[in-house]
Amino acid sequence: MTEGFTALVAELRFDQHGLVAALAQQHDTGEALMLAWMNRQALEETLRTGMVHYWSRSRDALWRKGESSGQTQRLVELRVDCDGDALLLLVDQHGVACHTGRRSCFFRAWRGGTLVEIARPAVAPAELYGEKE
Amino acid sequence: MTEGFTALVAELRFDQHGLVAALAQQHDTGEALMLAWMNRQALEETLRTGMVHYWSRSRDALWRKGESSGQTQRLVELRVDCDGDALLLLVDQHGVACHTGRRSCFFRAWRGGTLVEIARPAVAPAELYGEKE
Repeated sequence: MTEGFTALVAELRFDQHGLVAALAQQHDTGEALMLAWMNRQALEETLRTGMVHYWSRSRDALWRKGESSGQTQRLVELRVDCDGDALLLLVDQHGVACHTGRRSCFFRAWRGGTLVEIARPAVAPAELYGEKE
Repeated sequence: MTEGFTALVAELRFDQHGLVAALAQQHDTGEALMLAWMNRQALEETLRTGMVHYWSRSRDALWRKGESSGQTQRLVELRVDCDGDALLLLVDQHGVACHTGRRSCFFRAWRGGTLVEIARPAVAPAELYGEKE
């Protein structure tokens, strides 16, 4: 671990579970892809490998984005917000970010007093996860 | 409260504090502005008024963005992610989103193994908050 990384971690305000929110955004189009969570280990692995890792709250485990689905995220730039409790990940998303097979997890919009789907799956979930789905 | 709103709330997974993460993005440029938190009341006021409200975790209070600083956010569209624990707010940001006077709260980037400031304040914080700063 470098001195720089230690200084970076010191700027972050991890919550009581040791997590910060991380928003992944496609670096060249600005598309908001997904929001997930990172702990210190996920951040370290992301910076070390250049591939985005999160902490899965449901599985309580380190999770390299795309490890099951192949839909990886290459880190282009990491940004930190003013109070250190959120990260912005500028990424190059390979394929789709959402486990539903859609490019973005934010595929439902509030329009006319109701929630409507504004994007269809680009890939079938069964294709992403095979037998596991 | 409309039936639609009740249905919307039913799609959300509020955390143990009754909050969901909300990412504000400038609707026409895609710029990621800030990450904050909403509870049911903040969401309801946002949809009712068309101006973004958050829940301040530090003050434990409803907070209309810009109520002190004048730097308001007009809601253009609300989006919900696949598992209902994050909101994407497409907004029209009046002035600057960050309390430091910068357009975006994500003004620090990890470059060359160190955290560097990539944006300067557009407005002095003292101008935003007057005597309160």
